[in-house]
Amino acid sequence: MTRRYDVLGIGNAIVDLLARTDDDFLVTHALRKGSMTLIDEARAEALYAAMGPVTVVSGGSACNTIAGLASLGGSAALIGKVKADELGELFAHDIRALGVDFTTMPAADGPATARCFILVTPDGERTMNTYLGASQDLSPADIDAEMVAASSIVYLEGYLWDPPAAKEAFVKAARLAHSAGSRVAITLSDPFCVDRYREEFLGLMRTGAVDIVFANEHELLSLYQTPNFEEAVGYLREESLLGVVTRSEKGVVAVTREETVAVPAAPIEKLVDTTGAGDLFAAGFLFGLARDFDLRTCAHHGSLAAAEVIQHLGARPEQNLRRLAEDNGLPV
Amino acid sequence: MTRRYDVLGIGNAIVDLLARTDDDFLVTHALRKGSMTLIDEARAEALYAAMGPVTVVSGGSACNTIAGLASLGGSAALIGKVKADELGELFAHDIRALGVDFTTMPAADGPATARCFILVTPDGERTMNTYLGASQDLSPADIDAEMVAASSIVYLEGYLWDPPAAKEAFVKAARLAHSAGSRVAITLSDPFCVDRYREEFLGLMRTGAVDIVFANEHELLSLYQTPNFEEAVGYLREESLLGVVTRSEKGVVAVTREETVAVPAAPIEKLVDTTGAGDLFAAGFLFGLARDFDLRTCAHHGSLAAAEVIQHLGARPEQNLRRLAEDNGLPV
Repeated sequence: MTRRYDVLGIGNAIVDLLARTDDDFLVTHALRKGSMTLIDEARAEALYAAMGPVTVVSGGSACNTIAGLASLGGSAALIGKVKADELGELFAHDIRALGVDFTTMPAADGPATARCFILVTPDGERTMNTYLGASQDLSPADIDAEMVAASSIVYLEGYLWDPPAAKEAFVKAARLAHSAGSRVAITLSDPFCVDRYREEFLGLMRTGAVDIVFANEHELLSLYQTPNFEEAVGYLREESLLGVVTRSEKGVVAVTREETVAVPAAPIEKLVDTTGAGDLFAAGFLFGLARDFDLRTCAHHGSLAAAEVIQHLGARPEQNLRRLAEDNGLPV
Repeated sequence: MTRRYDVLGIGNAIVDLLARTDDDFLVTHALRKGSMTLIDEARAEALYAAMGPVTVVSGGSACNTIAGLASLGGSAALIGKVKADELGELFAHDIRALGVDFTTMPAADGPATARCFILVTPDGERTMNTYLGASQDLSPADIDAEMVAASSIVYLEGYLWDPPAAKEAFVKAARLAHSAGSRVAITLSDPFCVDRYREEFLGLMRTGAVDIVFANEHELLSLYQTPNFEEAVGYLREESLLGVVTRSEKGVVAVTREETVAVPAAPIEKLVDTTGAGDLFAAGFLFGLARDFDLRTCAHHGSLAAAEVIQHLGARPEQNLRRLAEDNGLPV
């Protein structure tokens, strides 16, 4: 069945403030390299004051995925909460400029638009500190039932589990999607996010609330609490869903009970900033899934999109991903 | 005499919103490629709505120069007007994060912080559309006399001539600088800016209000209204000041009545975005002047800083310019 949207993304609507830094800064400020930490307003202010000059770009995990999907020529919609402030306007401008339908009402008052302070070290690793701000007020009322029903796949980020109201919105969206015959995908987002909500995520996977799970290696190991990758993939294969595991430069593995597909990482010239690698991988993979491409093609699409985004600063593509895919012989 | 600041920059405090675009977009929106156009709020809104996703970074011509000077390890201060809004805070954060003294009081009300919509075409050229906003309210009262007196060089941008109050501030600063025995430098900013204020700029140069003039080739030709570069340089040489003319990939020429120095452009790997080339050239050159380096060394410093900034998106350096200069054998 062809639907209006290939993918509807639901996630925390966040503006990224990126700054280059060195490893000493992370040590001084007790930051866990490569992870995402939630911070309150006071901590956000202190960290910002200590950071170097910033580059501001729209972000948010599922939002980046939707931006990538649009760049691939997919039809997409987004649900996420900003405030009616300057950064909120920036966020809305950017996602709409990509042709994405974004109609969530901005908050008139309350906390400011969410921001993620991203510290990029010389090795290209990103350490994220998120002030959830207005995005934590995403609520079930923001879930547009018609938009959900019009989408082949509804894609949800695990980070939504952090703000309580957003979690309810997540559950409502998944339920509505299944009622409409849409598929539901989730990304586990971060190993520490998995640690916070392991049982609940496994519950979603085992009750049929989600059909597709994206995880990176660290998230997968955290989910099954094992240091052994093969063992963890074995557990994932036994879940009644499609599991997609990214392993940075080691490529990707997609598994179902019946099928296992491994695809190498797409080659890059220079690693600049890993921000958005997982988000853009999901964009390519979902693009393929929505078009009923085989898993191998989906994985190639994901790898290529991820390779583009890690070669520049920021978590959204700078090149037209559709052209990039065509140039690399992938079907669009 | 050693002073607290090598350079005090005074300019329009602007936040840049950069978007990649194609040549067709410039044609459709009647934009003059490579130039800076002043736009009002309505035009700013219309242009923004039509543009693609943006990257936000602090900008402003003299402000970029001061950022570059700080990156070179120079001591610097800045005077410029923002509003007390989110983009204004971003601007202030970024310049202070570089160690620059910036104490100009933000406007509590009135127009928003100035923004420049910069369209970057695939050839790396930038087409700028500036909404002056709060920056046009820079006034003589904002000129801190102690700060001026504490600076070896006061650097002013020609763009200040556009907002009437800023022009008065410019004149006041130049007068105070000379009273304190500081040198006054100006950049002509843009060929169309020169066209708007030719007689006034020549007046500043010929009454001794400025000691050092920065121009690119187009601005110089506009100033003397001749298509002949050698002829224009001849006129400049006759003014009783130091003239510094940049010619993109053709390098730079610095002239006084007594001396002419030509230095080639520093080599680059790939041109990405010319935004800030002139600003960063001025940063390197002023850094050298403040240290009494010879004109050739000043020009090499300028060329190296300009080469850094045109190899990435945005008008402020991403590398530490002091280290870059050292690695290239320049004195710091």
